Amino acid sequence: MAGAAWTLAIAAILLAPAPASASSETDFVLNTFSFLVWGVLIMWMCAGFTMLESGSVRSKNASIICLKNIGLYSIAGLTYFAVGYGLMYVDVGKVIGSLSLLHGPSADEIAFLGGDKGKTAAVVATNYSTMSDWFFQMVFVATTASIVSGTLAERVKLWAFFAFTAVLTAIIYPVVGAWTWGGGWLSQMGFADFAGSTIVHSTGGWAALAGAIVVGARWGKFRKDGSVKVTPPSNIPAVTLGVFILWLGWFGFNGGSQLALSGAADALAMSNILVNTNLAAAGGVLTAIFVSRPILGRTDLFAALNGAIAGLVAITAGPDITDPGLAVIIGAVGALLCTLGLKLLERMRIDDVVGAVPAHLFAGIWGTLAVSLSGKGSFLVQLVGILSVGAFVFVTSLVLWVVLDRTLGARVSRDVEEMGQDAAELGIDAYPEFALMVDPEDGGDFRDPD
Amino acid sequence: MAGAAWTLAIAAILLAPAPASASSETDFVLNTFSFLVWGVLIMWMCAGFTMLESGSVRSKNASIICLKNIGLYSIAGLTYFAVGYGLMYVDVGKVIGSLSLLHGPSADEIAFLGGDKGKTAAVVATNYSTMSDWFFQMVFVATTASIVSGTLAERVKLWAFFAFTAVLTAIIYPVVGAWTWGGGWLSQMGFADFAGSTIVHSTGGWAALAGAIVVGARWGKFRKDGSVKVTPPSNIPAVTLGVFILWLGWFGFNGGSQLALSGAADALAMSNILVNTNLAAAGGVLTAIFVSRPILGRTDLFAALNGAIAGLVAITAGPDITDPGLAVIIGAVGALLCTLGLKLLERMRIDDVVGAVPAHLFAGIWGTLAVSLSGKGSFLVQLVGILSVGAFVFVTSLVLWVVLDRTLGARVSRDVEEMGQDAAELGIDAYPEFALMVDPEDGGDFRDPD
Amino acid sequence: MAGAAWTLAIAAILLAPAPASASSETDFVLNTFSFLVWGVLIMWMCAGFTMLESGSVRSKNASIICLKNIGLYSIAGLTYFAVGYGLMYVDVGKVIGSLSLLHGPSADEIAFLGGDKGKTAAVVATNYSTMSDWFFQMVFVATTASIVSGTLAERVKLWAFFAFTAVLTAIIYPVVGAWTWGGGWLSQMGFADFAGSTIVHSTGGWAALAGAIVVGARWGKFRKDGSVKVTPPSNIPAVTLGVFILWLGWFGFNGGSQLALSGAADALAMSNILVNTNLAAAGGVLTAIFVSRPILGRTDLFAALNGAIAGLVAITAGPDITDPGLAVIIGAVGALLCTLGLKLLERMRIDDVVGAVPAHLFAGIWGTLAVSLSGKGSFLVQLVGILSVGAFVFVTSLVLWVVLDRTLGARVSRDVEEMGQDAAELGIDAYPEFALMVDPEDGGDFRDPD
Repeated sequence: MAGAAWTLAIAAILLAPAPASASSETDFVLNTFSFLVWGVLIMWMCAGFTMLESGSVRSKNASIICLKNIGLYSIAGLTYFAVGYGLMYVDVGKVIGSLSLLHGPSADEIAFLGGDKGKTAAVVATNYSTMSDWFFQMVFVATTASIVSGTLAERVKLWAFFAFTAVLTAIIYPVVGAWTWGGGWLSQMGFADFAGSTIVHSTGGWAALAGAIVVGARWGKFRKDGSVKVTPPSNIPAVTLGVFILWLGWFGFNGGSQLALSGAADALAMSNILVNTNLAAAGGVLTAIFVSRPILGRTDLFAALNGAIAGLVAITAGPDITDPGLAVIIGAVGALLCTLGLKLLERMRIDDVVGAVPAHLFAGIWGTLAVSLSGKGSFLVQLVGILSVGAFVFVTSLVLWVVLDRTLGARVSRDVEEMGQDAAELGIDAYPEFALMVDPEDGGDFRDPD
Repeated sequence: MAGAAWTLAIAAILLAPAPASASSETDFVLNTFSFLVWGVLIMWMCAGFTMLESGSVRSKNASIICLKNIGLYSIAGLTYFAVGYGLMYVDVGKVIGSLSLLHGPSADEIAFLGGDKGKTAAVVATNYSTMSDWFFQMVFVATTASIVSGTLAERVKLWAFFAFTAVLTAIIYPVVGAWTWGGGWLSQMGFADFAGSTIVHSTGGWAALAGAIVVGARWGKFRKDGSVKVTPPSNIPAVTLGVFILWLGWFGFNGGSQLALSGAADALAMSNILVNTNLAAAGGVLTAIFVSRPILGRTDLFAALNGAIAGLVAITAGPDITDPGLAVIIGAVGALLCTLGLKLLERMRIDDVVGAVPAHLFAGIWGTLAVSLSGKGSFLVQLVGILSVGAFVFVTSLVLWVVLDRTLGARVSRDVEEMGQDAAELGIDAYPEFALMVDPEDGGDFRDPD
Repeated sequence: MAGAAWTLAIAAILLAPAPASASSETDFVLNTFSFLVWGVLIMWMCAGFTMLESGSVRSKNASIICLKNIGLYSIAGLTYFAVGYGLMYVDVGKVIGSLSLLHGPSADEIAFLGGDKGKTAAVVATNYSTMSDWFFQMVFVATTASIVSGTLAERVKLWAFFAFTAVLTAIIYPVVGAWTWGGGWLSQMGFADFAGSTIVHSTGGWAALAGAIVVGARWGKFRKDGSVKVTPPSNIPAVTLGVFILWLGWFGFNGGSQLALSGAADALAMSNILVNTNLAAAGGVLTAIFVSRPILGRTDLFAALNGAIAGLVAITAGPDITDPGLAVIIGAVGALLCTLGLKLLERMRIDDVVGAVPAHLFAGIWGTLAVSLSGKGSFLVQLVGILSVGAFVFVTSLVLWVVLDRTLGARVSRDVEEMGQDAAELGIDAYPEFALMVDPEDGGDFRDPD
């Protein structure tokens, strides 16, 4: 009888909440907090794109690019809430998830918050809160949309751009996401893209490229004699600030993509990721400074800034490598390709105001292939992923831009373009008190674009 | 005897530091770290207000608004350290706390840091460190003060503004805080204001409104013929950057107001809060873009930017709802009211340079009432809270502004106003090398303000 | 037999993974995460220096200062990865560590990440991940380098500056670090410098001062008649934004220097540190506002902004004090010395474009001495540390600047200086569309500098 009492007492101890289960609630907290903290930094990247772009355009279009950017971030949040997340992550088969509208907290979570402590285990078992994951994924789709606005600045119509953004963030990006992070066919093949060199950055780059082709170059950018009109950034410190903001936000972008912070392995991986991210960007900057002279004819600040972005994009597919020296090389090659790409696009007479296609698309392709060099993915599978995502995004974007062009009109009139979208479309100048130099070609003898 | 030995052995196990108490030190760490991380983001909102305001004023007043902002943040920190925190939180009865000067770490904490491990339990039992709470509360009072500077820009005297800030942060805001978060009479009635739609934002808005009435409109803003002089922002990208900074900081503002990160319930709530905060702002931006054309006559960037802020203010009283769709609606209505408010203030000939009264006061009232719509507070009690805080802050601010006007003088002379406070009061131009357009009305035939 | 069974059962419980060891993996995660989150904020300080400096220089040199800043951050990261960290922290004897190239994750960490769970204990026992520590230390060396660029702006050659940065970050700073944080001779004497008033800020200040002496003042800055040419900041809101960014980043700088977040003592200390950091800066701002009128002849915004930095620098050697009132005083004295220092340098005809020497060197010396006032270090030892670091950094920097001057040339030609480095060296203007005022002295009757 005494023996039985001991047995019960000890059984009670053994069955009591063990450290392991106490620890898993801490894991839930840490995983969730990691999503939130890093997600907040990624949201900040929208401010980075805004500064980069408003400094890169001529001052007559600096207000409207601000509106496009705050608008696209808002649209991306609402469409991804309304349908995007469901298409990307909920019950994904091979190619797409489900049309589950208005993604919110789970029923268990709502009951638990309402006081039903019986749901604790069910909630904690999901490892992180439903909406922390949504938040983290939402700032990714906003990044994709941010890439497009820069390329098409100074001539795309506000409402056409907003309409494109809505479809990109509600459908196009979520489909790519469903194939990959959502568990669809590319994921099943073994396609590896840790934080989205292809899924986020190349997707944005392809959408921007399609837009640049349909919308065309700015009036007078490419002259009939083959020469190219120089359109320097109007505010270099703003561009630089934007790049620093992006660099900062990228720590969240790549670090948070570890998707957990529940043990030493996560913390270790996250540390390596931040270091590799930083080294790739640093390698990108210095490479661009060195190669810009032979390629572009001068030590080029704009190339150096884009070199940082290209380095960051390139490492994004595989920032969890354990050899930081390799990260320097991956970033450096990304910046080299970006600098060459700036030249190439000009040769192809494609007008990309901020160099987003070289920085996000070209470096993104390289970064995705580089994963296989570091032994984490098959070269062939990576190539299949790059090509299939590219084909899907480029073709759907091209069709969409053509449809928008024929309905809303994708491009402002020549008068609006010469006057600037700020005054013509918004009635508000970016710097109304500052005396500006008149562009000698404005109102002059322009040749047709394209 | 053997039995007694077992009893002792098992008792030892049962009495040994249990996982729960080990976990509670982790809770202490996480709660404290949450205050610090989110508090740091809120401090960043001061930079947001500075950019928003320095971009919104005419360039001749852009330097002094920078000084006002870094000054007010410094003053708020020192007064809240000296007396404010004590009045708001220490031994609060019905209406006010105690005059405990120079709030510092607790005696237990100092002993513990000095090596007295016997204090561990006492320290950990407080759930978070004394000064992490102080830090988090201090950045809130600074936010309140930040709201005032924008409304009164371009004509309030530097030292009168600093004097007002000192009283607002040392006394007025702490009294409102004592009634509510400090546990005073409004709190006891059940007034619900999660992160401060009324306590922070309306308080700032009422103080600004009182100042705008006493100080009066800028010379020439409202003409005798009833027309209104347009005074566009001098630097739109700076205003946009400011709004992005505020949006970012608001994640800390609302998320940190969960006040804990010690379990799944906190992490869940914090996730929902960040998502709702973001969706309300997004809903605010798009609503303002849509309604600005009918209300203000054009797709208005400035209204869109204020729409983001109004959406954020509106959700602040109840960001912990579990229906994110409702957050979109709350933010959208806030932005609608803000846009209407911009028009209303102009009709009432009240000169609010940045639109802080519509964004912080009008949207704050709406947000506080909206809490009752989501079932978390009584409509009547919310109304009592709004009215009593409003009456107290507005009347004390009005009296204070009148006193300052009759002593220091609240308003610069007409000469100083025409010349700009930068050159006249600071002897430093914001952009000394840039050629500026002369305001055609400066030095011209101005009518009296008011 | 039954007794033996009980014994075994209880032994199993006693020997089971105890809360303590579960907790130590959580400690590892929290320590690492703290390094990463605060480290990211410190990286952001580079953007702060960039904004501060690009706003402080005349607009003709605003682009090149952006390139110098993003370049120096990249160089610092690569040199510190290549050799700097090893010299500072690996097997430090009295004066220097070892030449271990390319600092990467430890062998245990790589094995653990590769799936060898047997390495868990060894990894966790290190308390934080190898690369999180590297990341945190790397952003410190970048801060040191950032200080130099501001002082020497507008006349130092791009490549000479980059070369100096490489040596400073690869060797000079790591040697100072080895003596102190690395455990070398100054550390063994008891030298106390919590987050680097001397190690980071004075080191940067001495290097800048040596450069200012070798490179000389800007043409025309100091006239033969003893008068000083006023060279006001070209963009005050940018300078202000920069200071807010620095203030924000400093929370990471000082808070992260607790180096752990594994228990109540760390969380407590970190809270006190953030509060003291903020109060010192606030005290600095208000002091500078008050003393700038008697010292500089006007209420000086630039002095107020530098007062914030000086307050931050001063508290950095001992931010972990438990008396926040003392922090206010330490910051206030730092700002007073900085404001006097601005005047002193002008008297000594040393041209420091942004006031980095007064803010980082003078306030850094004060802060390091102030540690002994708060009872945490011997005054004599602090003085030995200040003098030995000063002598080492100043002399090596002086020699290096002279060597660079005689090889690459440290200073641009007078023509380049008059034209501006942006147009002359980069072929890109910072604000190409904005009409700028011509400096009346440019191309005029300049006297020789020095």
